[in-house]
Amino acid sequence: MPTSPTPNSTRRSERSRVAILTATRELIGDLGYAKLTIEAIAARAGVGKQTIYRWWPSKGAVVFDSLLVLSERPDGGGIELPDTGDLEHDLRTVLRATAAEFSDPAFEAPIRALNTEIINDPDLAAVYREKMESPMREAKRRRLRSAQAAGQLPADTDLDLFIDLLYAPLTQRWLLRSGPLDAPFADALVTAALRAFRP
Amino acid sequence: MPTSPTPNSTRRSERSRVAILTATRELIGDLGYAKLTIEAIAARAGVGKQTIYRWWPSKGAVVFDSLLVLSERPDGGGIELPDTGDLEHDLRTVLRATAAEFSDPAFEAPIRALNTEIINDPDLAAVYREKMESPMREAKRRRLRSAQAAGQLPADTDLDLFIDLLYAPLTQRWLLRSGPLDAPFADALVTAALRAFRP
Repeated sequence: MPTSPTPNSTRRSERSRVAILTATRELIGDLGYAKLTIEAIAARAGVGKQTIYRWWPSKGAVVFDSLLVLSERPDGGGIELPDTGDLEHDLRTVLRATAAEFSDPAFEAPIRALNTEIINDPDLAAVYREKMESPMREAKRRRLRSAQAAGQLPADTDLDLFIDLLYAPLTQRWLLRSGPLDAPFADALVTAALRAFRP
Repeated sequence: MPTSPTPNSTRRSERSRVAILTATRELIGDLGYAKLTIEAIAARAGVGKQTIYRWWPSKGAVVFDSLLVLSERPDGGGIELPDTGDLEHDLRTVLRATAAEFSDPAFEAPIRALNTEIINDPDLAAVYREKMESPMREAKRRRLRSAQAAGQLPADTDLDLFIDLLYAPLTQRWLLRSGPLDAPFADALVTAALRAFRP
């Protein structure tokens, strides 16, 4: 017997992995994070509980992986913002895409449920920052550093403040449902953030 | 028998009202909005359930009043931002005070609990907007219109976008506990928002 997985078992594993992560996202949307159980995920994915515990140490770990795949690139590379050399153009592209994603109920429901848990659970918030927020923020910083090198953003710009000004109003409008997440709003945020830091 | 309340009964009523609103805020912090009941409020406040139902039609109504008193002025007037004639100075005063309030566990715990309910309950979010967010936002708009009249802010400034840039990063940092809510952060937000809209 070979000790490495056969092509068939690899395909089976990948099918199970996708089923588990899909079931997890659906169930967070239906039940919220607090009521979600490994049993419920296993039942909806059509796998045994042990299959889930073999790959993930905890409920939180499955949940994060189920949301991480939403931001994975098809080619398997890390998160990267577009860089055409035109910062304003690229930020509009990214902010419009983000606004559109968060207008999509299938995309936003599990992330909304997770956010409410994070707000009340400092430990979960720390895991979230490490696994999801930090890689995203570092990708944004990379794009802004590239703009600094190209002379499109002053060298002394507080990059984290820039990112907060750009994204926090969008996040707030999404969470509180206080206005449309549309292209004009995305564009207005890009314009305002760039104006706040121009020399 | 007089039909109007006697001085003694008015004092008793006011004592009960304060006890009910204080108990409500404490219980939201302990239990969260979802698990809060009129029974629990009555028990902690030392009043009968009927006393609460005589003054408030629903749990949501008590909760909002319990939080509204936090923003009431001692003289009974409406919400008003300071107006010394210097917009930047006044915004720093207000943002620093807001940051300090949200750093205070006794102040922020019930509002945090309510926020997580609002995020998942569009009906509660609508009541929140009408009772708490709208009067606050209108007070902020009034202060900014006064600055426009004084030539300190361009006449075509999008006041709601200005308010979002100023407050959303603070709200996000508070909810996600992603950084200190201190004076330097408050000042940086004021500077950035003003720069974003200068002519």
